[in-house]
This record gives sequence, structure tokens and C-alpha cells, in this order.
Amino acid sequence: MAATVQTHSIEHLYHDQVTNTTTLTKWGAIIFRAMLMQDLVGVLDPLQVLAHSNHLELSILAETLDPVTTEPLNAAMNTYNSTWWPQLVPTHTFDTAPEDLEVLIVPGGPGIRNPNITAVTDFIAQTYPNLKYLITICTGAGLAAKAGVLDGRRATTNKGSWATVTAMGPNVEWVSPARWVVDGNIWSSSGVTAGLDLVFSFIEHLWGATEADRVAGIEEYVPHPQDFDPFAAKFNVTSVGHI
Amino acid sequence: MAATVQTHSIEHLYHDQVTNTTTLTKWGAIIFRAMLMQDLVGVLDPLQVLAHSNHLELSILAETLDPVTTEPLNAAMNTYNSTWWPQLVPTHTFDTAPEDLEVLIVPGGPGIRNPNITAVTDFIAQTYPNLKYLITICTGAGLAAKAGVLDGRRATTNKGSWATVTAMGPNVEWVSPARWVVDGNIWSSSGVTAGLDLVFSFIEHLWGATEADRVAGIEEYVPHPQDFDPFAAKFNVTSVGHI
Repeated sequence: MAATVQTHSIEHLYHDQVTNTTTLTKWGAIIFRAMLMQDLVGVLDPLQVLAHSNHLELSILAETLDPVTTEPLNAAMNTYNSTWWPQLVPTHTFDTAPEDLEVLIVPGGPGIRNPNITAVTDFIAQTYPNLKYLITICTGAGLAAKAGVLDGRRATTNKGSWATVTAMGPNVEWVSPARWVVDGNIWSSSGVTAGLDLVFSFIEHLWGATEADRVAGIEEYVPHPQDFDPFAAKFNVTSVGHI
Repeated sequence: MAATVQTHSIEHLYHDQVTNTTTLTKWGAIIFRAMLMQDLVGVLDPLQVLAHSNHLELSILAETLDPVTTEPLNAAMNTYNSTWWPQLVPTHTFDTAPEDLEVLIVPGGPGIRNPNITAVTDFIAQTYPNLKYLITICTGAGLAAKAGVLDGRRATTNKGSWATVTAMGPNVEWVSPARWVVDGNIWSSSGVTAGLDLVFSFIEHLWGATEADRVAGIEEYVPHPQDFDPFAAKFNVTSVGHI
């Protein structure tokens, strides 16, 4: 957080930006029923700040163009009959997704256990070979693992769902403790809000530290370091692999 | 983060819960064009965890039932012609909102400068007298200030937009530094991700510290204390008022 900003106005902050240090423009984000909204938004929102200073295209991808709800998969998973399920609108289906996606973002959530999630995992498997980067948040790593694209790669996931998710990828080199893990073009974060830490590191990777700091200021976020992971111990996850 | 959890499964975590320590069930969240999604989701997502162990009803409120976009208000505010604007679906209009809302959540974002935002501020002014709690995040405090409901009350807002937002409420007792401020039934947070810290304190207020800790574990978040605010200094905001 070294940069000194001399203005009191967000509007001015948006104009202090660094532009065009990356040529990545075509990004995709997968959404699915019973996903966790924070997994996705923690990554999208800081990048949206950069969409004011760079031409960035986001496709929000789902099986159909119907709004996608965070509602549990069935009534038995909504014991208290709550109605707390925001809905996001897709911009493309998996079939109409841009063919030249460069970055794909995969959130997690209880919906990763949906038997119909194969539409998502098939899309990840099909798209991955042409991607420049794959980003997973929380249990979204389980979807990438099911798709086979994490085989032989280092990755991490939510420490509170560790046993469930790591079982989805027996050939993945799972890493704990780790707030996030980078293995080549695959960036994977630990649970939910760890996506915020991943994305500020990713922004630094693409745009540089000053720009990451500027965006973190707008979001009023102090990113954690990569080895910050009190949740590995909290959830009794055995240490394995390295960051 | 004192609680010890003996399971590796999020499903089990969802069943370790405390229920019914609050009778608050009817919550509303306002959405509007060019809002910041993280402002809202940082508050909604932890509460969604609690919707698995309590009957919680969330109404997502907008001027019409059309999906609401984070897209800037006009092309001139989208200099790079980006397409990075997720859309959320309202469940009610301001006219059809439940009349017995107990908690109202107001996010911020560039859209607070929309000349048409009076539909939002009118709704806040009209609803506030019957609320048990009002929560504002980031520059959402500017909307509550414009609605007049912060007059004579202590509140905070995004430190990078300090001058702009505080000018919207000349009779508000603005507080800085502060990650969030509580004045009676009004809870206001600083910028964007400060909403996460506010909501974990709010959850502790309603459900107790053990439950707040359980939810923070699921979200893998370590909440900041109320006096954490490096952004006040970063953005040269003069110290004023008290938490």
C-alpha cells in the first residue's frame, strides 16, 4: 500500500490509471445454480475497476440464458425455507461463448455437487487448451479437477471442504496451507474471500504493483500474502505440497 | 476465531449452527444501475450462510423488475468501451416491496450520482421509519444521507470518495477513521470490502460471536476490527468524530 494518492475523489482515482500493459481482453466467468456469489464477485469487482482504464470484455457463461440462482439444488437443502438467493444474468451460453476466451474464472459453492454440473466441467475441459489463464475460487477447483485440467498441477481449495474437493482430483497436487496457488497458467484460491487476495496478485502480475495498489485502494482492501492461511489449521487440514 | 471445528466438511459446518437467536426475518437490499456488486455481495453472502440455519427472506429491490446492471450511466463513463457489467435480478420493485421490512441494505457505487437516483432515496426515506436496522456500504451512505435519514447520526463512508459523499449529508456526523460505524439502528461501512467487516460484526450482534466465527470460517475471512482504517490516511481524510 505504498502509493500516495493526492485526491479525495474516486472519479480522479479512476483517471490515475495505467493502461494497456496487458493485451488480455477476453474474459469469461462461469455461473451455475447454488454457486457462491462472493466467490465470483470478489474476483470480478476489482477487475471491473480496471475495465474503466482498459478495454475488458466479460462473458458470463451458463448452460442457458436464464438467470442463475444461488438457491440450493432442492428443498431438502433449504431446511428453513429461506428466500435468500440472488440471481445473476448470463450473457452467453456454453454453446455461444466466445471462442477466443483468454481467461476463464470458475467460482465454487454447494452447486458443485449437482449431478448436472457436467455441462460446466465439459465446458472447462473443452475451453482450457486455448486459455491463457484459468482462475478457480474456493470449491471451483473441484470443477476444474473433475474436468481433468488440474491433473499433475498444484492447486488449492476451500479448507473447510478439503476432503470433499480433493477427492474430486486424485491426480492433482493439492497444496495446503495456501491462500492461493499459482502453477503456470492456473491460479487457484482457497475459500470464498481468498478470491480477493488471488485477484489482487493476478492484477499485479498483469498490470504491476502500482496498479494493484490503486485498485486495492478503491476497494479499500489490504490483500493478504500467499502464505496467509489460518483456515488450514482451523479445519485440521494436513500440510501438503508447497506454494 | 476461537472456535474449534472438528470436521472437514462444509456440509457439516452448515449443521453446527445456532438458530433462532434473532427474530429478524425480512430483509431488503436495494440495487441500482452502476452500483458496485462487491458492496452488496460482501454483506449478502455471509448472511446467505445463515439462511441455511434460520428462516431469512431477502427482497432485492429496484425501480422496475428489469435486471440491474453495474454498467456506467453513459458511454462517456465507459471510456474504453468495456463490457464488464454483471446484472442482478430484482425480486420486487420499490412499489411492491414488502411493507414489513426489518433490515434494509444500501450499497454504493458510481451510480449514486445518477440524477434518477431519487427513486432510491425516496424509498429509503419512506421505509426507514419502520426499519429495525439500516445498513449502508461504501458510498451507499450518500444515498441514505440524501434521503435525510442520517441527519444528526454518526456514519462513515468510502474514504476515497469522502468529499463527494459527505457533501451529500451536511447534517450527518461523519466519522473517520472508521472501518464501520454503529449509531443506534444505523450501521454504515467504509469502502467496498469494509462491508465484509461490518456484516460479521452485525452477525455477532444478532447471533453471537460463535456464530459469527462459524460463518467467517466458511467464508475464510478474518474480520478487521472497527478501528482498522488505513484508507483514511491513504486518502488524506481529516480525522473527525468518534467510532
